[in-house]
Amino acid sequence: MKEFKVTPIRNGTVIDHIECGMALKVLRIIGLDGDNVQSPVSILMHVPSKKSGWKDVLKVEDRELDPKDVDKIALIAPKATINIIRDFNVAEKHNVRLGDVVKGKARCSNPNCITNLREPVEPEFNVESKNPPVLRCLYCDRILDNIADNLI
Amino acid sequence: MKEFKVTPIRNGTVIDHIECGMALKVLRIIGLDGDNVQSPVSILMHVPSKKSGWKDVLKVEDRELDPKDVDKIALIAPKATINIIRDFNVAEKHNVRLGDVVKGKARCSNPNCITNLREPVEPEFNVESKNPPVLRCLYCDRILDNIADNLI
Repeated sequence: MKEFKVTPIRNGTVIDHIECGMALKVLRIIGLDGDNVQSPVSILMHVPSKKSGWKDVLKVEDRELDPKDVDKIALIAPKATINIIRDFNVAEKHNVRLGDVVKGKARCSNPNCITNLREPVEPEFNVESKNPPVLRCLYCDRILDNIADNLI
Repeated sequence: MKEFKVTPIRNGTVIDHIECGMALKVLRIIGLDGDNVQSPVSILMHVPSKKSGWKDVLKVEDRELDPKDVDKIALIAPKATINIIRDFNVAEKHNVRLGDVVKGKARCSNPNCITNLREPVEPEFNVESKNPPVLRCLYCDRILDNIADNLI
């Protein structure tokens, strides 16, 4: 089955240690879940992890991530590591990182929150816990349900 | 990058020669696009094809496909080949195949078609062309728009 030799990439990004089941959501964050894929992308789901149990992995050629995308990935896959590959080498390796406040990256899941009422108020959350991420709305004090589906 | 060695699978299915951009839709057909992945799954998008240009590939461990799923795959990826792997060997290899009639696998995209009006009528289409698939409703005579989103 020669087709499945996944060869090293020259330039691109490997997102490793994604929480199982989250790879397709990360793919959506970086905008590669439609018909717009122009370079090779590999997605491995539910593969063994040396660190712990199982993980998902995403490998995207010819693409470096936007820092804003990295922040969003931290919200749904807080253990993920980002490896930037340049000329076949890992040029940068870092963990995703969640700050103490999340601003403008997710909408509040409370439909009556002022941030959802056509007011010019940017949604903002305090990070109560980082792994798993727990976000509390600064305006209506509610815990954000289902972060992945509420990303902006 | 050891993590990306995609090792051969003992038992499972490889769906090869999927039309570019269709891998995630095939994944949805076989029901592995949610949090329900229990065995390793590899998805390769936009990789070079020896046959022609680019292709997507899907590799699913510990899973053989339901014939009904294979018929649906034929509707969105008519050039796909299915390889059933047993004990590290390709035990079966076949092309997906579209018959002359498609019954009960897609809904008509015409909201006023009798098949969409709570009548006990199963949607049925004549296959006017196989590659790309063009389906004409037996009841309202309309060509089915956007097959992938109208699969049942």
